[in-house]
Amino acid sequence: MVELHPLCAPLEFLLGTWKGTGVGEYPTIRDFSYTEEVAFTHTGKPFVAYAQKTRDAGTGLPLHAESGYLRPHKGGHLELLLVQPSGIAELLEGTVADRHIQLVSTAVVGTATAKPVAATERCFRVDGEVLHASVAMAAMGLGLQHHVASELRRVP
Amino acid sequence: MVELHPLCAPLEFLLGTWKGTGVGEYPTIRDFSYTEEVAFTHTGKPFVAYAQKTRDAGTGLPLHAESGYLRPHKGGHLELLLVQPSGIAELLEGTVADRHIQLVSTAVVGTATAKPVAATERCFRVDGEVLHASVAMAAMGLGLQHHVASELRRVP
Repeated sequence: MVELHPLCAPLEFLLGTWKGTGVGEYPTIRDFSYTEEVAFTHTGKPFVAYAQKTRDAGTGLPLHAESGYLRPHKGGHLELLLVQPSGIAELLEGTVADRHIQLVSTAVVGTATAKPVAATERCFRVDGEVLHASVAMAAMGLGLQHHVASELRRVP
Repeated sequence: MVELHPLCAPLEFLLGTWKGTGVGEYPTIRDFSYTEEVAFTHTGKPFVAYAQKTRDAGTGLPLHAESGYLRPHKGGHLELLLVQPSGIAELLEGTVADRHIQLVSTAVVGTATAKPVAATERCFRVDGEVLHASVAMAAMGLGLQHHVASELRRVP
C-alpha cells in the first residue's frame, strides 16, 4: 500500500471501485439504460486515475468507456482529463469540496472521425453510500444539456 | 473471449501485455532510465484500449503513465487519443502496416497547470519478439525531437 499524496486527500472518498446503473438521453438518440463500473486509483503521486466502462443494461454488451486522470490542486481546485474511444478528449476544471466534484470543460477536442462535441459538464457526488455521477453535454450542434446520470455503490 | 472487431485486425499484433525497459532524454531534463508496462486490450468494439505505466529503473517508484484508445479505420488509417496525468491530452493520426505504427499529433492540449507541449510523434513497431515504442516531442518551447524509446517483450 502506497501512502496517498497529501494533495489527493480531498479525493480519498472516491478511491476504489464502484458499480451500479444509469440512464442516458439526448435529443439525437433513443433513451438508454446501462450498467457501469468506475475505478479511482492512485500511485502515491499527486493525481488519481479514473477508468470507467458501461454495458447495455439489456444485452450486457460493451457500450461506452473512458479513462483519464484527476489532478487536485490547493484550495479545492481540480482538473480532470479524459479520453473516450469515440475519439473525444476532454479537459475540465472545477472544484472538490464535501465529497462533491463539479467540473466544466475548458477544451473538448476530437479526432477527424469523431462526432462533434463542443462542451461538457461533469459531476461526482457521494451522498451516504451512493456515488452519483452525471454528465451534461453540448454535442451535434445542440446546447449544453443533461446526458447521463448513474448511481453507484462501492465494491467491497 | 470476445471476437476481435474486423477493423482491429491490423492491430492484433499488439494485443496483450508487454514489459521492458527504456531510456529518456530531453534538453530540459536529466537523462533517465525506466521500466515500462504496456497493455493493449479490446472489447469486440472497433477500438483498442492502450494503458501504459513506467517506473524509475533505479528506485522502482512510479514515473509516468498514460492511457487512451487506438481507433483503426479502413486502409491502414489510424487514430490514437491519450491522456497523461501531467495534464496533457494528445490526438494523433497515422498509419498501421506490417506491424509498424507511425503517428503524428493533430492536437495537443493541456490543462492550465500543465507544461507546454506543442506536438508529438509516436511509433510502435514489432520486430521479431520485441515491441519498440518511441516518442518524439516538441515541448518547453523547443522543436520536435527524440524523447523516449523502449524495448518490450510480451508477458505470457
